[in-house]
Amino acid sequence: METIKIGLLGFGNVGTGTYKTLEMNRKHIEANTGLSIEISKILVNDINRKRDIKVSSDQFTQNIDDILLDPSIDIVVELLGGIEPASTYMLKALKNGKHVVTANKAAVAANFDDFMDAAKRNQVMFRYEASVGGGIPILNALTTALLANEFEEILGIVNGTTNYILTQMTEYGLDYADVLKTAQEKGFAEADPTADVEGIDVANKLSILISLVFGIRVPPEEIPTEGITSISKNDIRLADQFGYKIKLLATAKKAGKQLEAHVQPAFVPKSHPLAAVSNEFNAVFAAGNAVDDLMFYGKGAGPMPTGSAVMGDVIEISKAIAKGAAFDHYSESKAVKMLKFVGEGQNKYYVSMMVKDVPGVLGSISTTFGAFGIGVDSVLQLSKDANSDREVPLIFILHEVTRARLDEALDKISKSKFASEIKSVIRVM
Amino acid sequence: METIKIGLLGFGNVGTGTYKTLEMNRKHIEANTGLSIEISKILVNDINRKRDIKVSSDQFTQNIDDILLDPSIDIVVELLGGIEPASTYMLKALKNGKHVVTANKAAVAANFDDFMDAAKRNQVMFRYEASVGGGIPILNALTTALLANEFEEILGIVNGTTNYILTQMTEYGLDYADVLKTAQEKGFAEADPTADVEGIDVANKLSILISLVFGIRVPPEEIPTEGITSISKNDIRLADQFGYKIKLLATAKKAGKQLEAHVQPAFVPKSHPLAAVSNEFNAVFAAGNAVDDLMFYGKGAGPMPTGSAVMGDVIEISKAIAKGAAFDHYSESKAVKMLKFVGEGQNKYYVSMMVKDVPGVLGSISTTFGAFGIGVDSVLQLSKDANSDREVPLIFILHEVTRARLDEALDKISKSKFASEIKSVIRVM
Repeated sequence: METIKIGLLGFGNVGTGTYKTLEMNRKHIEANTGLSIEISKILVNDINRKRDIKVSSDQFTQNIDDILLDPSIDIVVELLGGIEPASTYMLKALKNGKHVVTANKAAVAANFDDFMDAAKRNQVMFRYEASVGGGIPILNALTTALLANEFEEILGIVNGTTNYILTQMTEYGLDYADVLKTAQEKGFAEADPTADVEGIDVANKLSILISLVFGIRVPPEEIPTEGITSISKNDIRLADQFGYKIKLLATAKKAGKQLEAHVQPAFVPKSHPLAAVSNEFNAVFAAGNAVDDLMFYGKGAGPMPTGSAVMGDVIEISKAIAKGAAFDHYSESKAVKMLKFVGEGQNKYYVSMMVKDVPGVLGSISTTFGAFGIGVDSVLQLSKDANSDREVPLIFILHEVTRARLDEALDKISKSKFASEIKSVIRVM
Repeated sequence: METIKIGLLGFGNVGTGTYKTLEMNRKHIEANTGLSIEISKILVNDINRKRDIKVSSDQFTQNIDDILLDPSIDIVVELLGGIEPASTYMLKALKNGKHVVTANKAAVAANFDDFMDAAKRNQVMFRYEASVGGGIPILNALTTALLANEFEEILGIVNGTTNYILTQMTEYGLDYADVLKTAQEKGFAEADPTADVEGIDVANKLSILISLVFGIRVPPEEIPTEGITSISKNDIRLADQFGYKIKLLATAKKAGKQLEAHVQPAFVPKSHPLAAVSNEFNAVFAAGNAVDDLMFYGKGAGPMPTGSAVMGDVIEISKAIAKGAAFDHYSESKAVKMLKFVGEGQNKYYVSMMVKDVPGVLGSISTTFGAFGIGVDSVLQLSKDANSDREVPLIFILHEVTRARLDEALDKISKSKFASEIKSVIRVM
């Protein structure tokens, strides 16, 4: 049986998950591929660290060159996380003629073109299925089975931590801060949750999806990105009354020759399949011009689901090596996909504000929206808050408008004598 | 640009959908693959028939050998439907060294091993993504990106007609016969709906899924299969009260060294992602031992979604041809997958019956279930039906039991003096 040799960079959660996935299903993989896949070396910071997994200490190395310069290693699997040194290691591996598999969304989003160029120049394969949606094989589907489609829109719930927090806030009527604390205690959120709750992780993943689906590069830092930290239980309750759930969405959609994209919490209609995606689950929803609506749902994180995606890539490359075809053909021109990225575009919005409980307030505010060309879809005036003297909550769902235009209108409204505070502005899907 | 030539067998709904998918996205496909895919000949019954699509009449032929014996044709795409002559044509094409793509679940389920053997012997590729779940790229995912998993269970809603009927019955409280009539008028159900409503179409698809996922052949006619014709609006209403929706499910699951499989309407808990799959949509839910729960959702039928899946297979093969690697490696042994198929196994059941409204009835029936070793999960006794004198509906949700054992118990109960009629027996997921 032909043997394919792997060098693993990193042996944290995902590294051990990948190792365990391979060991657990070794016989199954061999029976289905006719190949033996062997992890021959593992790069770690400390060879002598005690680990709760049995791995021969001969396999460990602290020297990256033991892997990058070993001619017997076919595939380098990068699971270090972070942009550097992971990116440098991967580029060197590609340059040395090794195939590369990674789960590292930050590195792929930051250096997408460099990785593609290096893979192309060195006639090797570069795969990163685990970088978006964890175990869900969405990148593979988009680049193979769905290639006969042009996609108009792609929407994703691609961060399990924030989806868990929003789900718990929704189901138990809890505040953001309380749920975050519990999530941290349970290990569902990091001690420093910034990358998750501020939407940075999602922006990395959206940047990768845009590269694949729309063929243009939009660096994550150029994607308008908003996290979930300002979502209140009140917003969630009001969303429910209007028939929505609040989800942190990655959105990219074509509008003619333009591409709009953003990472934002959004009101998702309860009838939409994404509304039913709860807790740590992820899902990617896409509308192709032939296949129509599709959704892929599964575990977006965790050692074993991520290990499944990493091993899927390793198996694909291993089979290609065995067939003598371990390279990708790249087309000469991507001219048909020359879209222009224009930021977030126009969206519907939910606006919640506190207003004076006096006659004429609704008319005045509606008139201001009208003067800015903003249509009102629905409005809800709640009865007086027991704690606030002569102030009532007023909620609008507004028709499509740019965020800049909306902010101008809200600025004018908040300076009027009627409104005391704009409490929330959330996109409506 | 290298050109790949296709011979199309059949030009009905799916044939024209495939043709349109290719034409609509030709530039996109060329830009992404660097290949030109050309449909060079189309087998039809009547060359002179008027069609609402512009195709040069030179492309049509009524003679299958014009395609099977044409050395310039790389890939034969079979979209005739039905087991014969489709199977004979495909086997001949494979024998002639042509790659084959098909959307034909009946033919693939009937002759799976023959197709695999012929593809292997002739070192060509055989693909059938569109045969299960229409546009949803589930077979591709299971055989590539998810190959590092052993699957414990696979569940599918894989027939759009029956899911549409059940959804409409649920949403509007309608009877089966009324919804079927409307569905036929709207073209969502065939004039002869037997293959759909009796579960035959689903059994074909489940047979294919079992071959792929569990590595054993279970012919569709050996799968215990039940359709939706006896589901009443009353069953649907009661399911709702217990927290379930009724769906026609294809189920296959491992129980140790055994495989259980069946096609049956089932109570699906509302919290399960499959419960939210409505109308003509399909979904396949699978639980892998590394990736955990996954669901793929999309359009299970229709000319364009099916065309998307067919073209996905065509593109995969075309890329492999261009790389000089258009063949599959088959493993020597599938020993690890030697499961024994044992039919439907044990399941939970919902039983609805009419009983005499006299003291002791609940005790007597519960005692009978107990005597047969059948545990009661929950029970609901409804108040007297206005139309039936001294009879009341009695509903049970029962713990795991084989259907044979349950039928014995129900036979005894229906012969007792208390029960007048067993109205429904439906599996509970």
